[in-house]
Amino acid sequence: MPPLRCFPVTTPLGRWGLAIAAAMLLPLAGLPAPALSQAHAGDPLPSWRDGPARRAVLSWVQRVTQAGSPDFVPPAERMATFDNDGTLWPENPLPFQLRYILDTLRARVEREPALARDPQVQVALRGDPASLMAPGSQLLARVLELTATGMTVEEYAASVRQWLATARHPRYGRPYDQLTYQPMRELLCHLRAHGFRTWIVSGGGSDFIRVWSEAAYGIPPEQVVGSSTDTRFELRQGRPVLVKTLERRFLNDKAGKPVSIHAAIGRRPLAAFGNSDGDLEMLLFTTVANPRPAFGMLVHHTDSRREYAYDTRPRSSGRLVEALAQAPSHGWVVVDMARDWSTLFPAVDARLCSTSVTEEIAPIRAIQR
Amino acid sequence: MPPLRCFPVTTPLGRWGLAIAAAMLLPLAGLPAPALSQAHAGDPLPSWRDGPARRAVLSWVQRVTQAGSPDFVPPAERMATFDNDGTLWPENPLPFQLRYILDTLRARVEREPALARDPQVQVALRGDPASLMAPGSQLLARVLELTATGMTVEEYAASVRQWLATARHPRYGRPYDQLTYQPMRELLCHLRAHGFRTWIVSGGGSDFIRVWSEAAYGIPPEQVVGSSTDTRFELRQGRPVLVKTLERRFLNDKAGKPVSIHAAIGRRPLAAFGNSDGDLEMLLFTTVANPRPAFGMLVHHTDSRREYAYDTRPRSSGRLVEALAQAPSHGWVVVDMARDWSTLFPAVDARLCSTSVTEEIAPIRAIQR
Repeated sequence: MPPLRCFPVTTPLGRWGLAIAAAMLLPLAGLPAPALSQAHAGDPLPSWRDGPARRAVLSWVQRVTQAGSPDFVPPAERMATFDNDGTLWPENPLPFQLRYILDTLRARVEREPALARDPQVQVALRGDPASLMAPGSQLLARVLELTATGMTVEEYAASVRQWLATARHPRYGRPYDQLTYQPMRELLCHLRAHGFRTWIVSGGGSDFIRVWSEAAYGIPPEQVVGSSTDTRFELRQGRPVLVKTLERRFLNDKAGKPVSIHAAIGRRPLAAFGNSDGDLEMLLFTTVANPRPAFGMLVHHTDSRREYAYDTRPRSSGRLVEALAQAPSHGWVVVDMARDWSTLFPAVDARLCSTSVTEEIAPIRAIQR
Repeated sequence: MPPLRCFPVTTPLGRWGLAIAAAMLLPLAGLPAPALSQAHAGDPLPSWRDGPARRAVLSWVQRVTQAGSPDFVPPAERMATFDNDGTLWPENPLPFQLRYILDTLRARVEREPALARDPQVQVALRGDPASLMAPGSQLLARVLELTATGMTVEEYAASVRQWLATARHPRYGRPYDQLTYQPMRELLCHLRAHGFRTWIVSGGGSDFIRVWSEAAYGIPPEQVVGSSTDTRFELRQGRPVLVKTLERRFLNDKAGKPVSIHAAIGRRPLAAFGNSDGDLEMLLFTTVANPRPAFGMLVHHTDSRREYAYDTRPRSSGRLVEALAQAPSHGWVVVDMARDWSTLFPAVDARLCSTSVTEEIAPIRAIQR
């Protein structure tokens, strides 16, 4: 059987799209493929230049998903975890969520000028990521207290949505959620088209990421695993609400990532994608001594022209040194952003995935368990 | 369009099964239905007697899933959460996980007789659920320390598997994982066949439930949300392991359930199923002031002949008093187990779901987002 490829259906999937998809199931059931298939075949990763990274991921996906392959992995076990900051969108020089937090804090200080005399607020507004993102940071606690704690989860989501609608990235002039990496969007689609479930496993906050991850990446809220604090259940005039607190703060970074993956997914991933030493343990957990043929990939920020080349600098916040050094011995594929990616960000209003027959096939297999 | 029904395919879904499923997609795409469909139509809930509970759930599922219905809910939002103990399998007189814990503790005391002098062990082995399951119970902490803490998650899962393979329920003489409620298994299948994702939201431990939930209910590990403690990531001779600790104990009961649902799913459920006052907040969170036409159901333990009638007794551990009192005002459907269920447990080696065309259709819809 030939490898699964994408067959774009140009019309939205309505009743006829569904009928076409149904007809297209036949070749994949082992029956003769109509000539149509070849004619519609497209490149699943058009923003990836030919090279070792592109070839490695395409051939691995084929190897673990093609029926009859000795390395075939059942769809139920096809979990792919992605770091977000620096892997799916930029994190240098400031993680985008930190920009949201600082913008929100500035707005609050404008409304309540007395806050400007708070020494912690003064330090925070200098925007040094290292001091704000240190594990257990009291400064971050204070800032979260001023920008998130006490809000219901709906109020918080509305605040993030409002920020995305108005804030623009100072260098690129675009809304932050339009600055996702187009090559990674294509990879997410390609994996899902082959029966994978794609997860975000991020040091960013779950409640922050969930607001826009489905539109930006096709990753729904229930597949976002981020840093978190507990919410508190309350009935307000009989209506249930969840209020954000500072309790049980969990920083989803480094050794926290395998821990949160186990808590949320309960399986070892089959593939993990990261960009910094904060992803080292996730990649080890995924690929080392995994009885399945697992896959690890590191996005190496080498593109000083279109983005930033920063990740091997001594004090960079998204530092990639130890994981890069371990990559060869573990077989992790390293993406050289400058060389491997022909496009960085999506075209304005670009569609996330082209509807493809393989996208329809994958869940059908998945349900056979 | 007629309501979706199940069409059992009697052969395992191989290449021809897939071809048949493909052909069956056509009627659901709005094209004429072949006569085949009617001939294969079956009752999705054969273990439910006709009555208000059965009618209510069937008509609600139809209402929220039928294309063109004013109450139609997109598949991505069709999340159904189920309590486990007392809702999907018995919890009286002792929750099954407590039986596992006590059996494991007894085995350890046999190997290390000095433990028999530990006053906490002596109290624990009396098996009083109230003292063991109180929130923050130090007794439970000590028992977990002796039966789970320090094990890798694989070692723990192997221990649960071994127990299921050998332990038998004292009254029913069957392995515990064969004592799930057959009517609820049918309901889980019916919901999934209509594009729902089914979740366990249980006071039991995630690591305990995940071992057997997929085989027993068709609920995979990543849709199990239970009580938990953190694991700790370690490299042992370079191999990654997760070790169970007692840190960050989370009891997933009462107001903890909406909190864990938000943490894991990030959406309000569309339906919630429980059996005790421990599920009250989950049902409120799901059904009160939900802009979607939500559904709540309580399993009322009324069957003293086939099971136990206990849940309105003053000191019962799975007490159903407050939630039952609130049911009428919130429109929650109450299942009278003695009256509404014709069968309690599945036949030995019964198949979980009959493969049905609707099971194949649902994920196709779900992926259109």
